Amino acid sequence: MRILLKMSYNGKDFHGFQYQHNYRTVQGVIEAALTKMHKRQMRIHPASRTDRGVHALEQYCHFDTDLGLTTGKWHYILNRNLPADISINEVAEIPEDFHVRYHSKGKTYRYSVYTADTVNPFFYGLKTHYPHELDKERMLAAMQPFLGTHDFTSFSSAKAEIVNKVRTITEFRIEETEAGFDFIISGSGFLYNMVRIIVAYIVEVGAGRRKPETEAIIRQKDRTIVPRTAPAEGLYLEKVHFDGAFEK
Amino acid sequence: MRILLKMSYNGKDFHGFQYQHNYRTVQGVIEAALTKMHKRQMRIHPASRTDRGVHALEQYCHFDTDLGLTTGKWHYILNRNLPADISINEVAEIPEDFHVRYHSKGKTYRYSVYTADTVNPFFYGLKTHYPHELDKERMLAAMQPFLGTHDFTSFSSAKAEIVNKVRTITEFRIEETEAGFDFIISGSGFLYNMVRIIVAYIVEVGAGRRKPETEAIIRQKDRTIVPRTAPAEGLYLEKVHFDGAFEK
Repeated sequence: MRILLKMSYNGKDFHGFQYQHNYRTVQGVIEAALTKMHKRQMRIHPASRTDRGVHALEQYCHFDTDLGLTTGKWHYILNRNLPADISINEVAEIPEDFHVRYHSKGKTYRYSVYTADTVNPFFYGLKTHYPHELDKERMLAAMQPFLGTHDFTSFSSAKAEIVNKVRTITEFRIEETEAGFDFIISGSGFLYNMVRIIVAYIVEVGAGRRKPETEAIIRQKDRTIVPRTAPAEGLYLEKVHFDGAFEK
Repeated sequence: MRILLKMSYNGKDFHGFQYQHNYRTVQGVIEAALTKMHKRQMRIHPASRTDRGVHALEQYCHFDTDLGLTTGKWHYILNRNLPADISINEVAEIPEDFHVRYHSKGKTYRYSVYTADTVNPFFYGLKTHYPHELDKERMLAAMQPFLGTHDFTSFSSAKAEIVNKVRTITEFRIEETEAGFDFIISGSGFLYNMVRIIVAYIVEVGAGRRKPETEAIIRQKDRTIVPRTAPAEGLYLEKVHFDGAFEK
């Protein structure tokens, strides 16, 4: 039986999603809970691996089990056995040929920035502090050209080994918050650090620290033009998009 | 020259205020920053020592210095050299016979509870999860008798070595939040764990898990009647009260 978990987590105290020996990771914590229940080593498969310090408002993983529990029982037992920085929000039984990573069609990320002059200790690990006035219209103008299908070499980590850097961005918008701005970006897929590099560029444009020249930067396919990467703490995996049947 | 700092901090990653060898504490982090600047061991004196995991929306400390910096310069340099879970909000020069602990006249605490069925990972370390419906009127009725001057033996840690357990409560009220309830309590002084024991009792009354019988419990002067202590993570030092001149 294949079980799908819909969950959220606070990434602050995790060294990312993926299992690492001797480090606290989301995968490590969930697999430890499942391994204890099954009395054998269990493996989970996520829709998306998030980096160290990155949060998830909506993330999915699945695992195969022969325990025969109801989804309600899984929900209850897992939340009882997981730490308070992870929450299982829904449990479903899915077909054994469904794989959350291969069947996902896209993702939405949120990046949260606050612009107060001084640090707010209660945003520690949860929002990025950028103490500059940001011009919303100027940012929107620089955001618009990201929409559509482009080669995003200029906005991806040079470390990324993927050859094809063409991706499609379907949504890129701003939500004003009490404390600053949230950037919401959706697409078919994202290159390594792509959202954090794009946000670093947009806030520099918003602060008047660089010119809006998105089309030219995309065209040049050169990461060195956009050297900064916004910190992990402001980044949230907001939604994973599936085909109709598993759209939650 | 005696310098007063008004600050806030997120207590989650601190082992409390007071210096402890080999543990990260608020005092340890601030003294390390000051010691580096002065090139000699510096000491700070707080208005109130908060326990491990307890937050401060408004806390004060003072120290003596011969560096001769302006208050604006202190503000800037300290915030640059302190981690993002502490914020210095104001700096003032004060007379050398003023001591923030001895001159404080009382304190206000806030205790924040959320009542959702499941854990919210983004309240991790910042609010206490109590997944029960709470009856506000029932809680208010149990809160009212705390006002005034009483012997609070029943609501203080048995470990407290203080002999005189008479304290005066001047305010005890509820603020409804999006997620649950905040309890705001002010008084001339508080015994060890007193706020956390009172809140544990009030939420049990609110959930219908025990009878409201505040007067009787106070009268019995017996801690065993109120065995629980609410967790540190929901507790905030909200305000320290001084005589007019230093009231911020």
